[in-house]
Amino acid sequence: MAGGGPKYEPLERTTPPEPSEILVEERLRRIEQVVGGRTRTLTVVLDQLEDAFNMAAVLRTCEAMGVQDVHVVRNPEVTFQPNSTVTQGCDKWLDIHRYETFGECRAALKAGGFSIWVSAIREGATSLFEMSFDGKVALVFGNERHGVSPEVLAQADGVFWIPMRGFTQSLNISVAAAAAITRAVSWRLERRGPGGDLAPDEARELTRKFQVLSVKQRKKLYRGE
Amino acid sequence: MAGGGPKYEPLERTTPPEPSEILVEERLRRIEQVVGGRTRTLTVVLDQLEDAFNMAAVLRTCEAMGVQDVHVVRNPEVTFQPNSTVTQGCDKWLDIHRYETFGECRAALKAGGFSIWVSAIREGATSLFEMSFDGKVALVFGNERHGVSPEVLAQADGVFWIPMRGFTQSLNISVAAAAAITRAVSWRLERRGPGGDLAPDEARELTRKFQVLSVKQRKKLYRGE
Repeated sequence: MAGGGPKYEPLERTTPPEPSEILVEERLRRIEQVVGGRTRTLTVVLDQLEDAFNMAAVLRTCEAMGVQDVHVVRNPEVTFQPNSTVTQGCDKWLDIHRYETFGECRAALKAGGFSIWVSAIREGATSLFEMSFDGKVALVFGNERHGVSPEVLAQADGVFWIPMRGFTQSLNISVAAAAAITRAVSWRLERRGPGGDLAPDEARELTRKFQVLSVKQRKKLYRGE
Repeated sequence: MAGGGPKYEPLERTTPPEPSEILVEERLRRIEQVVGGRTRTLTVVLDQLEDAFNMAAVLRTCEAMGVQDVHVVRNPEVTFQPNSTVTQGCDKWLDIHRYETFGECRAALKAGGFSIWVSAIREGATSLFEMSFDGKVALVFGNERHGVSPEVLAQADGVFWIPMRGFTQSLNISVAAAAAITRAVSWRLERRGPGGDLAPDEARELTRKFQVLSVKQRKKLYRGE
C-alpha cells in the first residue's frame, strides 16, 4: 500500500499472551520432558516430620525422580518449613497436599485408589526389594524420633522396611526415602521402560502449570529477585 | 578331700579372657549376623567432601547396608569430622581408609582389583540402573559444590549417574549415595541371595575385631561414658 506512512499493529491485544508464546523453545522442551517423566501413581507421605533438612531433602528427591505429589501431615509442634538451601526452590514444581491428621490424608489417598505402605521396622514387614510398584502406591515416612504412630500403622495397607544388615538399626529419613523412591522408580523402569504415566489431560494441565510458573520465575529473574 | 576348709581356684589366670567369654550370647549372635552380611567388594569413596552431615549420613548408610570399607580423600580445607548425632557412633564398625590425594586412593583400590565408578552428570554416563555390581566396585562421590575434579574423572574406569527426570539437576550427596548403595545391594540380593561375601579368614578377623569393640563399648557403658 503506498502513502500514509507505515501501518502498525495495535499495541493492545484482546487476550494476554500465552506462556508458551513468552518462553523460549528450550524451556518449553524442558517442561515437556519433565512432564513426560512425571508420575501421580507413586506418592510420598511425610507424617509429622520435624527436621527442616529432612523435609527439604525428601522434596528434592521426589522432584528429581518425577514424583509429582507429596502429602504432608502436620506436626502440631513444628511448622512444615523445608530448608530452602536444600530444596533449591524445587518445591514449586510439586503439588504439596497438607492435612491436619493422618486420617484425613489416608481418606484422600484411599479415595484416589492408593495402597498405603508405611516404612517401619516391624516383625513381618515386607522387604522394599520384594514390593510391587505396579498400582498406585503411597509410601509413608514417620517422625524422625518417634517413627510412625500405632494409629498410622493400624490404618496402613502394609508395612515395609529397607533390609539393613549392620549394627545401625535405622536410616536417616532422607536416606530411607531416597532408597525407597529410587527403588520404586527403577522397578517401574525395568518393567515399563522410562517415562512417567500421566494421562493426556493430566499432562496438559501440568504442562500449562509449569509454563505459568516458568514465566513467573523469568519475571523474578528479570527483577533481580 | 576332707578337712582344711574349702579350696579356691586361684583368682589370676595366665591369659586374659577372650572377648567371646565376656560378651553375652545375644551380642555374639548379633556380631555373627552382621559379619555374615558384610561385603568388602563394594566400597564407597568420599572425595573431598565438606559437609559434616553428608559425611555422617553416608557412613551410616554404608554401615547399615553392610559396606565395610569407606575411602576418604582429604579436603585440604576441611577436617573429615562426620556429625556424631547422625553417625550415632556407627563409624567404629567401619574401616575408614584415609588418603591425601585421589591418586593414592585410586592406586590402593586398583591394587585391590576394584573398578572405579564416579558419580557425575556427564554426556554418556552409565545409568545406575544399568550398572553391573558383579565384581569389585568402588563408587566415588565428589565435593558437594564442585563435584568431582576433571583429574578424578580422567582416572576413573567409568562414570555413572542416577537417572533424574525433574527440574532438579542434582541430588544431595547423602541421597545419591543412598540410592547407589541400595541399588548395588539389591542388585546382588536378586542375583546371589542375601548375605555378604567375606572370605572365611576375613570373616574370622572381623568377628574378632567386632568382639573387641563390643567389649570396649560395654566397659564404656559401665563407666557411664
